[in-house]
Amino acid sequence: MHRIPVGVLGASGYAGRELCALITRHPRLSLAFATANEQRGKQVELPGSGHVTFVATEDAPLGAATLVFSSLPHGASKEWVERARAAGAKVVDLSADLRIGNGISGIPYGLTEARRDTVRGADVVANPGCYPTAILLGLLPLFEQELVARGATISVHAASGVTGAGFSARTDLLFGEVAENFRAYGVGNTHRHLNEMRAMLGELGADADLLFTPHLLPMARGILATMTVPLTRPLDDALAPFGTRYSQEPFIEIVDAPPELRHVNRRNVVRISAFSMTHVRTPTLTVISAIDNLMKGAAGQAVQNANLMLGLEETLGLPA
Amino acid sequence: MHRIPVGVLGASGYAGRELCALITRHPRLSLAFATANEQRGKQVELPGSGHVTFVATEDAPLGAATLVFSSLPHGASKEWVERARAAGAKVVDLSADLRIGNGISGIPYGLTEARRDTVRGADVVANPGCYPTAILLGLLPLFEQELVARGATISVHAASGVTGAGFSARTDLLFGEVAENFRAYGVGNTHRHLNEMRAMLGELGADADLLFTPHLLPMARGILATMTVPLTRPLDDALAPFGTRYSQEPFIEIVDAPPELRHVNRRNVVRISAFSMTHVRTPTLTVISAIDNLMKGAAGQAVQNANLMLGLEETLGLPA
Amino acid sequence: MHRIPVGVLGASGYAGRELCALITRHPRLSLAFATANEQRGKQVELPGSGHVTFVATEDAPLGAATLVFSSLPHGASKEWVERARAAGAKVVDLSADLRIGNGISGIPYGLTEARRDTVRGADVVANPGCYPTAILLGLLPLFEQELVARGATISVHAASGVTGAGFSARTDLLFGEVAENFRAYGVGNTHRHLNEMRAMLGELGADADLLFTPHLLPMARGILATMTVPLTRPLDDALAPFGTRYSQEPFIEIVDAPPELRHVNRRNVVRISAFSMTHVRTPTLTVISAIDNLMKGAAGQAVQNANLMLGLEETLGLPA
Amino acid sequence: MHRIPVGVLGASGYAGRELCALITRHPRLSLAFATANEQRGKQVELPGSGHVTFVATEDAPLGAATLVFSSLPHGASKEWVERARAAGAKVVDLSADLRIGNGISGIPYGLTEARRDTVRGADVVANPGCYPTAILLGLLPLFEQELVARGATISVHAASGVTGAGFSARTDLLFGEVAENFRAYGVGNTHRHLNEMRAMLGELGADADLLFTPHLLPMARGILATMTVPLTRPLDDALAPFGTRYSQEPFIEIVDAPPELRHVNRRNVVRISAFSMTHVRTPTLTVISAIDNLMKGAAGQAVQNANLMLGLEETLGLPA
Repeated sequence: MHRIPVGVLGASGYAGRELCALITRHPRLSLAFATANEQRGKQVELPGSGHVTFVATEDAPLGAATLVFSSLPHGASKEWVERARAAGAKVVDLSADLRIGNGISGIPYGLTEARRDTVRGADVVANPGCYPTAILLGLLPLFEQELVARGATISVHAASGVTGAGFSARTDLLFGEVAENFRAYGVGNTHRHLNEMRAMLGELGADADLLFTPHLLPMARGILATMTVPLTRPLDDALAPFGTRYSQEPFIEIVDAPPELRHVNRRNVVRISAFSMTHVRTPTLTVISAIDNLMKGAAGQAVQNANLMLGLEETLGLPA
Repeated sequence: MHRIPVGVLGASGYAGRELCALITRHPRLSLAFATANEQRGKQVELPGSGHVTFVATEDAPLGAATLVFSSLPHGASKEWVERARAAGAKVVDLSADLRIGNGISGIPYGLTEARRDTVRGADVVANPGCYPTAILLGLLPLFEQELVARGATISVHAASGVTGAGFSARTDLLFGEVAENFRAYGVGNTHRHLNEMRAMLGELGADADLLFTPHLLPMARGILATMTVPLTRPLDDALAPFGTRYSQEPFIEIVDAPPELRHVNRRNVVRISAFSMTHVRTPTLTVISAIDNLMKGAAGQAVQNANLMLGLEETLGLPA
Repeated sequence: MHRIPVGVLGASGYAGRELCALITRHPRLSLAFATANEQRGKQVELPGSGHVTFVATEDAPLGAATLVFSSLPHGASKEWVERARAAGAKVVDLSADLRIGNGISGIPYGLTEARRDTVRGADVVANPGCYPTAILLGLLPLFEQELVARGATISVHAASGVTGAGFSARTDLLFGEVAENFRAYGVGNTHRHLNEMRAMLGELGADADLLFTPHLLPMARGILATMTVPLTRPLDDALAPFGTRYSQEPFIEIVDAPPELRHVNRRNVVRISAFSMTHVRTPTLTVISAIDNLMKGAAGQAVQNANLMLGLEETLGLPA
Repeated sequence: MHRIPVGVLGASGYAGRELCALITRHPRLSLAFATANEQRGKQVELPGSGHVTFVATEDAPLGAATLVFSSLPHGASKEWVERARAAGAKVVDLSADLRIGNGISGIPYGLTEARRDTVRGADVVANPGCYPTAILLGLLPLFEQELVARGATISVHAASGVTGAGFSARTDLLFGEVAENFRAYGVGNTHRHLNEMRAMLGELGADADLLFTPHLLPMARGILATMTVPLTRPLDDALAPFGTRYSQEPFIEIVDAPPELRHVNRRNVVRISAFSMTHVRTPTLTVISAIDNLMKGAAGQAVQNANLMLGLEETLGLPA
């Protein structure tokens, strides 16, 4: 069957290479080009299998692609989204440039399970950040079903594998610095991801404060978010709000034991569980969600959105 | 100088071997015996250096020791504490058997920095659990200085290295199951450690609920606890309560960046930092504390308590 | 299309679960049963995705399977191979029971690339060990092309991830014992794998001694074998013997840089490179081969053999 | 007691920081200065405990130090060795610049156990590389006792933790690239270390070829070298040559089981074992040696040499 040509801008990072690998194995897409300025002309191995040879971003034949994914750095991506649009391509932007909470409006936010309808008809989609994907999908049913206590403070402690920090030559990401270590970072900062989450919760009409503390794990891939959520009332069945909301979702798994990162590894899923806290006075739910930061947290969700934008079946080419 | 003979019951686990190693290098203690039923007669290497040969617990010459450490399993320890007392030895019990929150009273709780005076004169001390050590030392100054909002829910997300689960032949602790994985466990259970912490907070007159979610890290040693604490009022200087309380403590380090587990590795210290959360409506402090679960969380604190009970300098033989 | 029913005996170990996962995703096979005595009645997650519920081995409906894989322990497998045969099923035995070097004859040795023709028509195949797979495929072309010096000693140093030791509750396989550690084991023993390799080399008419030192890596999966091979004459092109022999092989990759374990992770391939040692007097080739011990080293090669035995395309259902 | 002032040039790398930590805890040395151009003015934590603030190398008060350690990069070190000498300081050079095999003569090679007497009286000592330390100490007794077959090829497969590659911002040393990976590197190159080893063996009058294949381990610290050595005759007691030679050495441990990297972690020792290979025609010994690459392989041995050069007890300040 005819394959739809797509391109990847900024393809040499962890998410970019994952994207190239997904496209290479996708039954209906073909990789028209992949760009990486510093590694232009270089052939690299893709995760899983296969190879790709990078071209300079300036040399990308944008017009040859029906859809372009941009994995360019935050700040640098926006201009190329416009260039790709001008060349007639649809765009999924994996950078933060066009995401909600960034002063941008009118660009659909590609948290697929929350915004499927606007994504389907869009020419440009802002792919969510990895932390927001894990956290928002864990909170969404509670806000939609008006279960969160008004004015509540939701405490989110999240931990990410190192690939979440990107493929960059930084000494703090060396094996010798990360192995046998664990630490929080960006504590109390209004981290970019926090704005994104607050903006999305605002769209849901939420009246709650979010405390978000990210941590760095001594492992390559995965994000686990553990959230304590004050409720309006005790829940008999902690999983019910999630089961109701997500029963038809192909990429959401509701489980009754705490999710483990190894069970979402290299899969485009979010796995969620929830537990009623019966020993505290305020009715509280502990929600835990787990994703692979490079799949559902980046490249996988980007392909999921692209499938919808291109009129393909949403699950095509994605390891669930 | 004369060395004081001490013994270790149940010495083959991670904490027990660490204890033997500390005793072996201690300038004023000598190891009179170390017991391990399954490994009796076997010589094993100690962490760092040195060797020890185990005897059966029944064969321990209790009377030959001025002080006995018990690292026997929870439930089995209590009887041996009594036997050691009957033989005239002082005892530091590393099991949970005699800890507060266990229906026991009259036994000093060996959270040294909180109970130094009672420990000093005691014949038996219940050494705290690893999680409670990290968490209580991070919360103590806030409760003592009446900074915690009344009726507040404190959300504690903690993560431990695998040695915290002990040296036991369990398939869930195999390298192949733990590496490249991260997960919560015991969520919502009234975990033994939770009772211990609530009892201690009760002694401090605290009116607060504790939400405690432990996680298992893909690393050998260390506990990091990240706690969000609603306050009575905003704090200009997040570190001030800790600096005031702990300025003279040899084993407590107050730092202004988030503590890292590698910086407490194999050291008998707790490292604490705190951050005011300025973007939420409720005045809130994020407190992070880090320990080595086998040192300040077990063997190190046990020696710290033993030093006090034996009239030695508190810091003797302990890597700070 | 009709799927062929297959069963797995002893499916709860690492190789067994990998096998169940491969069968579950295989386009032409279906999993008729999976047995595990200790875990009978239990549902477990498979690597990648999917679940399986184990039955007791005694309850396995052997007759319902066209082909049975046995992952039972060495020693226990042989009897069940016979029972499965008696029930009319073909068998791939992953244990060592029927392998060459074990005093057994007449059972094809399933090193597919070396024995494809005998495997194709066989009713029972002995699937090779993980180390022998990596090592023999690296040496085969050199012996077949008579490049190995007569009477030579080939020095093989190999390192394996921990899953190679199986899913068993042993304290020496705990995360706390394996992480940040590396060690040789079984040095100088006539390790079971050594007999298997010598027997196979004998069948090739080799006149060489094999020195084999296995090591345990602090990682979950993978075997890397580094072999120094004295040659009859210097080779201009170190890769030539491999390119010639393996050019049509779908699961063998000849590369010019040293193979990395991450590039074969979860793939049914062996990756091989070779280097002429020009600074020593004896013409010598350093050959390095890399496999995933659970895929090409166990479950993957078992499915590769089963495909041939069942008249299916050899590559079906295998991640290359 | 009076402390001897010493300085460290190029102190920001892994070996340099380890050196500063050792000096800080040394009972007879004090750290006069530590230099690091890129991090000048910055205070960093030392491994274990303590802090150091770096100055620019140009600003080092060379004359204030009785002895200077240079951890400057290969090529850049030589000049500073001369400057330090001109300022009246003794020097231990940890770079390769002055090592044997580099066209340099007259500078004692600081493989302490082989060259103790020349080190003791020296003003400048070239500290050995990490691989050569592990390998040469494992081979030394065999050559000295003329047990190695003439013209033999010794096959050395060695594996190193990542800190051996230094503290540099290279993408190939990122956690995401090293974790769950294992690979050889520099295969067949006449690696700098190979020249160093051949030169030293030459001084011992050895007539043997060395095949050396280094590998990169997914762990932070440690070097394990596994060597197969053709002998002139079979050995009844494989450990005898080592016991004889090293019985009085404080930093050499002869063991009968294969050495493990965790047992030498953070210790200034080499642990050696040896095994007679009885199943091959050529009498062959497999020798395995293990060191911590930052201790006996770098900073520890440097202090060991400095102790001798300063007339102090050789073991002072070194964790054995």
